[in-house]
Amino acid sequence: MHFPTIALIGRHQDSGLDGPLRALASMLTQAGRKVLIETETARNTQVSEYPVASLEEIGSTASLAVVMGGDGTVLGVARHLAPYSAPIVGINHGHLGFITDIALPEAHTALAQMLHGNYRIEERMLLTGSIWRGSQEMFTATALNDVVINRAGRGGMIEVHVEHNDIFMYSQRADGLIITTPTGSSAYSLSAGGPLLHPGLDAVALVPVAPQTLSNRPIIIPGDGTLKLTLTGVGRGQTGANVHFDMQSWSDLQLGDCIQVQRAPWNIRFVHPQGYSYYSTLRRKLNWNLMPQNGEPNAKAG
Amino acid sequence: MHFPTIALIGRHQDSGLDGPLRALASMLTQAGRKVLIETETARNTQVSEYPVASLEEIGSTASLAVVMGGDGTVLGVARHLAPYSAPIVGINHGHLGFITDIALPEAHTALAQMLHGNYRIEERMLLTGSIWRGSQEMFTATALNDVVINRAGRGGMIEVHVEHNDIFMYSQRADGLIITTPTGSSAYSLSAGGPLLHPGLDAVALVPVAPQTLSNRPIIIPGDGTLKLTLTGVGRGQTGANVHFDMQSWSDLQLGDCIQVQRAPWNIRFVHPQGYSYYSTLRRKLNWNLMPQNGEPNAKAG
Amino acid sequence: MHFPTIALIGRHQDSGLDGPLRALASMLTQAGRKVLIETETARNTQVSEYPVASLEEIGSTASLAVVMGGDGTVLGVARHLAPYSAPIVGINHGHLGFITDIALPEAHTALAQMLHGNYRIEERMLLTGSIWRGSQEMFTATALNDVVINRAGRGGMIEVHVEHNDIFMYSQRADGLIITTPTGSSAYSLSAGGPLLHPGLDAVALVPVAPQTLSNRPIIIPGDGTLKLTLTGVGRGQTGANVHFDMQSWSDLQLGDCIQVQRAPWNIRFVHPQGYSYYSTLRRKLNWNLMPQNGEPNAKAG
Amino acid sequence: MHFPTIALIGRHQDSGLDGPLRALASMLTQAGRKVLIETETARNTQVSEYPVASLEEIGSTASLAVVMGGDGTVLGVARHLAPYSAPIVGINHGHLGFITDIALPEAHTALAQMLHGNYRIEERMLLTGSIWRGSQEMFTATALNDVVINRAGRGGMIEVHVEHNDIFMYSQRADGLIITTPTGSSAYSLSAGGPLLHPGLDAVALVPVAPQTLSNRPIIIPGDGTLKLTLTGVGRGQTGANVHFDMQSWSDLQLGDCIQVQRAPWNIRFVHPQGYSYYSTLRRKLNWNLMPQNGEPNAKAG
Repeated sequence: MHFPTIALIGRHQDSGLDGPLRALASMLTQAGRKVLIETETARNTQVSEYPVASLEEIGSTASLAVVMGGDGTVLGVARHLAPYSAPIVGINHGHLGFITDIALPEAHTALAQMLHGNYRIEERMLLTGSIWRGSQEMFTATALNDVVINRAGRGGMIEVHVEHNDIFMYSQRADGLIITTPTGSSAYSLSAGGPLLHPGLDAVALVPVAPQTLSNRPIIIPGDGTLKLTLTGVGRGQTGANVHFDMQSWSDLQLGDCIQVQRAPWNIRFVHPQGYSYYSTLRRKLNWNLMPQNGEPNAKAG
Repeated sequence: MHFPTIALIGRHQDSGLDGPLRALASMLTQAGRKVLIETETARNTQVSEYPVASLEEIGSTASLAVVMGGDGTVLGVARHLAPYSAPIVGINHGHLGFITDIALPEAHTALAQMLHGNYRIEERMLLTGSIWRGSQEMFTATALNDVVINRAGRGGMIEVHVEHNDIFMYSQRADGLIITTPTGSSAYSLSAGGPLLHPGLDAVALVPVAPQTLSNRPIIIPGDGTLKLTLTGVGRGQTGANVHFDMQSWSDLQLGDCIQVQRAPWNIRFVHPQGYSYYSTLRRKLNWNLMPQNGEPNAKAG
Repeated sequence: MHFPTIALIGRHQDSGLDGPLRALASMLTQAGRKVLIETETARNTQVSEYPVASLEEIGSTASLAVVMGGDGTVLGVARHLAPYSAPIVGINHGHLGFITDIALPEAHTALAQMLHGNYRIEERMLLTGSIWRGSQEMFTATALNDVVINRAGRGGMIEVHVEHNDIFMYSQRADGLIITTPTGSSAYSLSAGGPLLHPGLDAVALVPVAPQTLSNRPIIIPGDGTLKLTLTGVGRGQTGANVHFDMQSWSDLQLGDCIQVQRAPWNIRFVHPQGYSYYSTLRRKLNWNLMPQNGEPNAKAG
Repeated sequence: MHFPTIALIGRHQDSGLDGPLRALASMLTQAGRKVLIETETARNTQVSEYPVASLEEIGSTASLAVVMGGDGTVLGVARHLAPYSAPIVGINHGHLGFITDIALPEAHTALAQMLHGNYRIEERMLLTGSIWRGSQEMFTATALNDVVINRAGRGGMIEVHVEHNDIFMYSQRADGLIITTPTGSSAYSLSAGGPLLHPGLDAVALVPVAPQTLSNRPIIIPGDGTLKLTLTGVGRGQTGANVHFDMQSWSDLQLGDCIQVQRAPWNIRFVHPQGYSYYSTLRRKLNWNLMPQNGEPNAKAG
């Protein structure tokens, strides 16, 4: 039997989640699966007919986690479940996302297919980062999208000294520097001019935001090394900078502090319907089918 | 009386133009205007109830030219009518364009408004260019969008020495170099990384295509000077390069040939409905309202 | 007599300025000019042989202001002197800048030429901006480089609603938005992907920093209109954003606040030696002469 | 004994190569190695004291190939030697390149070190491509840098339908489309806006040149799949397009023709001195140490 124990998790602030949640739980129960509701989700939706479980308990016992919400909700849950083996399927309660590629109306059909074994598992890498002041570790966190170091709002550019496997790479003066996974390459990094990385790559991209050196470019490196970023300069009148690990921020980075970033020891596993296409998602989300017409029709391809 | 003599011009290859053309001509006649049909348009549509006129005769005698087609059709007509004073209104027979901002179904209402004096005139600059081999002028043409010099298809990069008002600007190694007007800034130049220029600017942009010098950037200069582009290098095994003035191509540019580009002595005048907004066109054509959702909703604005 | 009264102004923090300052003052006195030393400069350098004058007195009485320092020093002085008619010449005490195009060792020769009438005056536009909360003006300042609105350091993207002459332009979600003059186009705007604007243009560029809409592009508009930027969104957990007018920052911009930006009623006037070339400065500062060699020599031009 | 048989290969057009070649051969002989001179190199330099060998014989018998010239010379030799196991060391006879990282004056010291076993082997992937018209293979070639499809010089944009492992990726309208290896990422692809790929990556980048869809971006995919590029559109009046495999061009690509690109079954192996740093080469070649000074010194990183 595929996925004998299935946990349901919803975005907490989302009103109107109780109806779809109950319908899904009922359908899964009828299909002979044991259903768990995540603690916070149960409290918010007041769906009390099923056993509740914390994210940690879900990690330990569930064979599948169904997350209803947007990409952000899924990523938040995924960071918690990553150390466990339970894979995740994202049901979008709103617009389709990069990760939540199943729309709510198709959820029952899609899940029924998955219960019959028609699905694909996709593994995605995570980053772990820690901030060091001298020999003291000040902060540590995990990121599925990106680790970002950027200037304080008031000040000028920051200067970051970057080493890859203890080899000096460059000294970057910029508004910020993004270390992105393939998953994060379609998020903030893309706005800053970064390339798209196929989720199957074991690689990270370093993407500067507004770099002072005009010949600087995003660079892609293998995922298995260690990056060290040292804050070596801040704008006039400033004393520090900010670091973001997905949604967790550390705003006390000081001159000389060092951020170590490397691949996490576990992956996140997503479940997709058969026929899922990463490229289809890209085309839909990035409007690649919409071409501006040039002033000279037919002078261009056509 | 606004626009006593109105010429109708259509895209020649366009079947199905005769119906809309007749309806428009009839509406204008009933409004007391004299209607002319451009010679080629009359032949193609077999609309023979109205006097025919060449583009030159239209330029001399019409007080308004109504062009039905896409941006390309309008631009082609505009180049011919530019030396005359008759302004142009573009009716889009297909998708709305950057210039043809009136859709066919709204054409009657929009023109009726214009006949009552409710319209705005917008002037747009043109470029004239000439190609010199020593003291001999080899080719000359006019462009509403852009003058482009680019490499022959087979070969490597070209090298172009650029002077502005006889001052050395740079030596550009690239696939090509685009000199664009504000009108052309939303066409090919935009694909090559150029900025948008408001049509009210008296300025041209120089936009390199795939420049070898990574710190090179598009540069905007005042519209009243003279640019001299000399071909100083071609790829291995090549003998020349190509030049394009909108749709007119000269494919025999040789090493040492010089292209002179400057603002044309006349402008093109477009007629827009009251309430026309350049920015509205940009938003619609460039899909500025469509934002990809980032992986972390709410982590970004909102 | 060209420039009968000449004021000398130096960067205050700069040690070692007294020698060059005295030498210059002596040379100008021997050439029959009246020399003034700016108050702060006199105090810092302890050069006390000449009458001192405040920047306001210099504006009222001097016929030329000689500024020794970097681009930043010149810009700071220029904002103060802009309402007056005295033009400025920048002597670089360090690296050559975009504006300070005379090196210290050539200063005597260059100034001697200028005293004989061999010089060029170049006018550059400034921006004035004011921040409004409802009908209350909260802050007002002048900028020679740029007006920048950007997110607070911790938070996500901001959303800015932009109008040009009361016409809606776009709603921009980004890290920030830069309104740059031609002078500022080679500073921060260039790092953010903006184009270069020739100083002779009466135009400003709007350059987004890391815009969420991937089809967004820098746009250049005529310099004579009014821009209104309203803060309509901030990142989760944030309450405001920052605004910078060159070096003056206002860090209390709140949702709904409006920034009005327009051309200042006066220009700054720079004095350059005969033979000064803006393009030469660009080539030198942006390393346009340094081309990376491609992997396939001769496959590319040459 | 490290590298018992060493082949010497020089750029054929290069005069003045005979002296350095003789010195190097003599040094290697004294170190007890057997020296071969490549046939063409021997003919051009008239160095006749050593046995000559074709590139194929060198591949079969040499344990190291020393190539004197620029990056292009090394790449040309590398394509020939790739199917064999002999690694390559590049001695730059001119400017240092991305690959030829040993300058001629240091060649003897560097080679002596290598003969003692102090070296690093670096493997780099190649691409193989073939062009199909229906079921007929028209052309096949190998590329160390890139496979490029681009428009004919005269015409407008081309349209290319791209599949990755038989999954539709996108339909690209552009001047061209570059498929680049990590090695090629610092060549033409970089000029077209592509990112840098670390040579240790098993990945290729697809980089459009002047794409019509403004939200299009370079995309990096795993190196182990198959790309199919079908020409589905050409500019008005055109009949075909061009394809380039490094330096080998096929200029007869017609509508409907398909290019298949995949990773070659062998790698190229380069020998570097101990202490070689890819990032050091990037910094030197791309001038990352040269930062333009902004207009506001100290407003940016201090």
